[in-house]
Amino acid sequence: MVNNIVIFTFAGALLALLFALYCAKKVLKFSEGTEQMSKISASIKKGARAYLKRQYSVVSVFFIAMFVILGVMAFLDMLTPFVPFAFISGGLFSGLSGFIGMTIATSSNARTANACREGLDRGLRVAFSAGSVMGFTVVGLGLLDISIWFALLKYVFNLSAPEITAAMLTFGMGASSMALFARVGGGIFTKAADVGADLVGKVEAGIPEDDPRNPAVIADNVGDNVGDVAGMGADLYESYVGSIISCCALGVAAFGGFKAMALPLLLASIGIVCSIIGSFLVHTKENATQKNLLSSLSRGTNFSATAIAVISLPLVNMILGNGITDFSHVGFYFSILAGLLGGVLIGKATEYYTSDSYKPTRKLAGKSETGSATIIIGGLGLGMMSTLLPIIIVAACILVAYFAAGGFKITNADQGLYGIALAAVGMLSTLGITLATDAYGPVADNAGGIAEMAGLPEEVRNRTDALDALGNTTAATGKGFAIGSAALTALALMASYIDKVKEFNPQADLTFDIMNPRVLIGLFIGACLPFVFAALTMESVGKAAQSVVKEVRRQFKEITGLMEGKGEPDYASCVDLCTRASLREMILPTVVAIITPVIVGMILGYQSVVGLLAGATASGFLLAIYMSNAGGAWDNAKKHIEGGNFGGKGSDNHKASVVGNTVGDPFKDTSGPAINILIKLLSMVSIVFAALVVNYSLL
Amino acid sequence: MVNNIVIFTFAGALLALLFALYCAKKVLKFSEGTEQMSKISASIKKGARAYLKRQYSVVSVFFIAMFVILGVMAFLDMLTPFVPFAFISGGLFSGLSGFIGMTIATSSNARTANACREGLDRGLRVAFSAGSVMGFTVVGLGLLDISIWFALLKYVFNLSAPEITAAMLTFGMGASSMALFARVGGGIFTKAADVGADLVGKVEAGIPEDDPRNPAVIADNVGDNVGDVAGMGADLYESYVGSIISCCALGVAAFGGFKAMALPLLLASIGIVCSIIGSFLVHTKENATQKNLLSSLSRGTNFSATAIAVISLPLVNMILGNGITDFSHVGFYFSILAGLLGGVLIGKATEYYTSDSYKPTRKLAGKSETGSATIIIGGLGLGMMSTLLPIIIVAACILVAYFAAGGFKITNADQGLYGIALAAVGMLSTLGITLATDAYGPVADNAGGIAEMAGLPEEVRNRTDALDALGNTTAATGKGFAIGSAALTALALMASYIDKVKEFNPQADLTFDIMNPRVLIGLFIGACLPFVFAALTMESVGKAAQSVVKEVRRQFKEITGLMEGKGEPDYASCVDLCTRASLREMILPTVVAIITPVIVGMILGYQSVVGLLAGATASGFLLAIYMSNAGGAWDNAKKHIEGGNFGGKGSDNHKASVVGNTVGDPFKDTSGPAINILIKLLSMVSIVFAALVVNYSLL
Repeated sequence: MVNNIVIFTFAGALLALLFALYCAKKVLKFSEGTEQMSKISASIKKGARAYLKRQYSVVSVFFIAMFVILGVMAFLDMLTPFVPFAFISGGLFSGLSGFIGMTIATSSNARTANACREGLDRGLRVAFSAGSVMGFTVVGLGLLDISIWFALLKYVFNLSAPEITAAMLTFGMGASSMALFARVGGGIFTKAADVGADLVGKVEAGIPEDDPRNPAVIADNVGDNVGDVAGMGADLYESYVGSIISCCALGVAAFGGFKAMALPLLLASIGIVCSIIGSFLVHTKENATQKNLLSSLSRGTNFSATAIAVISLPLVNMILGNGITDFSHVGFYFSILAGLLGGVLIGKATEYYTSDSYKPTRKLAGKSETGSATIIIGGLGLGMMSTLLPIIIVAACILVAYFAAGGFKITNADQGLYGIALAAVGMLSTLGITLATDAYGPVADNAGGIAEMAGLPEEVRNRTDALDALGNTTAATGKGFAIGSAALTALALMASYIDKVKEFNPQADLTFDIMNPRVLIGLFIGACLPFVFAALTMESVGKAAQSVVKEVRRQFKEITGLMEGKGEPDYASCVDLCTRASLREMILPTVVAIITPVIVGMILGYQSVVGLLAGATASGFLLAIYMSNAGGAWDNAKKHIEGGNFGGKGSDNHKASVVGNTVGDPFKDTSGPAINILIKLLSMVSIVFAALVVNYSLL
Repeated sequence: MVNNIVIFTFAGALLALLFALYCAKKVLKFSEGTEQMSKISASIKKGARAYLKRQYSVVSVFFIAMFVILGVMAFLDMLTPFVPFAFISGGLFSGLSGFIGMTIATSSNARTANACREGLDRGLRVAFSAGSVMGFTVVGLGLLDISIWFALLKYVFNLSAPEITAAMLTFGMGASSMALFARVGGGIFTKAADVGADLVGKVEAGIPEDDPRNPAVIADNVGDNVGDVAGMGADLYESYVGSIISCCALGVAAFGGFKAMALPLLLASIGIVCSIIGSFLVHTKENATQKNLLSSLSRGTNFSATAIAVISLPLVNMILGNGITDFSHVGFYFSILAGLLGGVLIGKATEYYTSDSYKPTRKLAGKSETGSATIIIGGLGLGMMSTLLPIIIVAACILVAYFAAGGFKITNADQGLYGIALAAVGMLSTLGITLATDAYGPVADNAGGIAEMAGLPEEVRNRTDALDALGNTTAATGKGFAIGSAALTALALMASYIDKVKEFNPQADLTFDIMNPRVLIGLFIGACLPFVFAALTMESVGKAAQSVVKEVRRQFKEITGLMEGKGEPDYASCVDLCTRASLREMILPTVVAIITPVIVGMILGYQSVVGLLAGATASGFLLAIYMSNAGGAWDNAKKHIEGGNFGGKGSDNHKASVVGNTVGDPFKDTSGPAINILIKLLSMVSIVFAALVVNYSLL
């Protein structure tokens, strides 16, 4: 079985891509509705495409520069010659995942809106199929790329297992860099457009959300696609690939040879099969309620998770042991289970703190009674408090994964770390279906926008709103998986970094005692990085939003008859403005993320780098949860009030909650999710530049 | 010299206390002004006293319980019999520092207001003298207590140096516990009253700040005294004592015997002398401008810092070397210098980010143009960004202090850690005068309140405002010292904890590798603690404020003629409400801080505790700076607008900045400063309960 890994992984990857194609065809059979709807959808698609095109051209400059740097390093024998190519291909495929996801999303929004004219469940089917295209494209491409590189390096170049995993980690760095650009750039675009449209349109001009008279309305909808869809696609591609390759690398370190690489790869393949079967279970009756819808989605994800949990046991026995009944390595199975369960529990904790079905968000909504200051304080407190449960869950997950894998002995560090990496792969093994349930949210959101702009009847808008609300719940679960796996993968990558240091300097002191000032200082600086990164991205959103505000104000003033619906707003100029602003602003945060570990390493040495990675992982995990959950809770507190509680729409309480939501926007859609990528990218960069740091550090 | 340490420290302590007495007498010679002023001042004093009395009675329950627990542990030979008494005495003196500071502050506020009727510089003199009472009481009592314990243990009980430092660390835990109660309780009181008074008085009823018709106005002024004064006194007493005793403990570990204990003690004594001389340099001409005032204050602090920097060199040579010309231990001198310089630089960085003389706060004020949401986002970003410089400064400080002390060899861990502790003592050596310049701020603030309530002419209010504004700058410097020393002291205490573990289990594995899952999990949980702690305290402020809001609304409704100035508001009921609410709310956060390290240790072992302490120190340092600076910047952005910029008082921009300030209040005056104490208390608790954790942990 181990010798045929590549066949299995190729098969899994192709199956996922074929299923994505099947879902795409299903979606495209639906009609886009009226001419106006298809026109609006076309402008959104055009704007999004234009943005991505320019984003890729900006990013390609960075990739070319990195290619040259890595090429020089390879020439100086600090890296293998495959590294620069692996780096490029990682970026390429990460970008491609985002592009395909966005293409199908922009083709599905009008179709979802139109389907909602006929019924809620029909709308769900279109939106969920669109989400499935995204979900299965991401996992399919991820596994395909790993398989291609694996086959190429093993069978064409005859490399050893450690050499293969080394090249693959660079592939991961390419994917992470692209993901960070996509998340940050897209995140700035979507929030700048959103804030700009809201501040001038809703607050100053007093027109409703998604009103076609608002010049920023198309930009706002484009933003949903380039941020929440293309950004998310690139992001999760990176998470998926990162968890698998870091697990392969640690497996090789723990067991040598290809045996331990087979486990994560096959787990991923089987996860795809389970996800596809799970998808077919998502169907519902004609007059479904919201609760029916949610339970039909859960049926799919629960089936997939249970199936992989069952199949993992014989898989572990067969691959690591000597056959299906050899339980000698059963500890690794518990590592996988810990990951699977951990992801679900973090998702539940996220939902508890951010959904208005539970006390925290309802209480937060009530704080609007004493104005915007108290709802802001409440949300910040809620976000901070919400870090506790995920920390405990992730700590328990690490503990179980490590000790179970190490045969409950602390001395088996290699096996223990491999266990942590396996937990991350376990958590993401059913990403195909969890991402499908997550990615359908922005499609439903956009469908709502189109329904409003095309002036469809209110019941249609109510249906898209219902779909959107459901999307918030599934998005919470998705976030749990994304952030939990990020922490575990970051730890696995830290271990890979240490292996790398050993490779370049066999005499290196490989203890990283927390009382060693190098480690300690690294820890402090690392813990600070997510704060600085969040500050930079929030500042960028602010700057970009301010320029949108000015442009929208200008159009309201200069275009005659705009408010009366007689003049035509210049949508394209707002899209263009957001594009330019977000591309300009995405560069600094990303560059900071990439050069900091290299600079710290060059000055203070590799021990500080390990401290830095640990500090960044801990504080990044906390900050990401804090920001995401505070933002999510404010959003849903506003929706709770809009649902008729605490005075309802238009009340002073509602206005206070809008302030909370505006503060939360960059928290949850720009800075928070980008930190997930940041903590992994820091490790990947450290690994790639390890030779430089080990050989040439200053102190 | 080493043999006569106690004489020198007693002398230093008495000198400080005599100087405090001298300053107190100077203040009390001034008149309290009109009958109305003295009546208002009396109500404030009465409220503050009543609060402290009840706080002490609540806290004493905790202290009695801890006394019993520690007594049982001492009985079981886990601790020396001195420990319970040392614990109690630490709490007692910490509380006493707060009490004396508050007594003089409440006796000086009306006097300062009255002095401002005659001139700005006269007002400064009263306020600064009041601040000096506080500053020198804190350092005098701190050094006195250390001297008494030292003399008692050494000469009466004939204990060895390690036994003495062990008892003293418990003394520190008592002080820290008291400080945390005082900071959290006082912080909740002051902000609940402030927010309550503002929300109903200023926003709903539209009456000015400190208007006597506002039923919460006395509570607001009481709050300034119990929070900003009594809380700060207990807090800095704890910082001062903590830094000295942790340095003594590490000195004994590094050198054995009493030699290395002498250095921090004598440094503190000489620092007191330098501070007193510096205080005499604070005088100014009759018609001084704001700039003159600031430079006259700086003259005092700069002189003291320079003097201690110069004297430290021969001191180090004499104590650690063989005489004034023996430069063999000069490295330790650089450790002290690093601390002194680090404190000043962090203060400067704080000032840069929070003063409206610089770009960040001015730009923040400008963000009010697009509403409260953008000024909130801007302030949060500013706070996060402002963590970068202090982290770099503290990292450099650790690096220099450690390596210089260790003779530039990484292997001298004991000496290196002693160097870090010396840096903390160096930073706080001139606390007498820096605290004087810091503590005068709340006095000036209160004086302004009394001027308003007593209807004094506008020019008087302008003068108190000028003093208050100056206080903001000096407070920024003070915060720099408090937080910088907290981080260094926490690290020193971590090292003492490890020594303790070794004492109880000589076979213990004393490596704390960051990749060890125990350490790693501890790190994650520790990093989360400050987030949870901040959330709890912010939530408490919110709850307490809500009850004040209701009470004030009730009085406005039920007391006839209140708004017309005919009815008498019931000030006492608001004070009572704040007292009860803050005492109720202060318990949970403090108890969480005390039991968490014990629980984590009992479950996961001492290695996790070290991870926890490191994580809490790193994330606590960042969070404290983030919250303090965001709050400070919002406060000064509001003041900048009130100074006539961006529309000035009453404009929409001003309203937006008031929202920012309200959010910032619990940030900067409750949660932020309490985190400083938290990170030290965690270490102290761990040290005291080390025997339990080492012998009985679960995993």
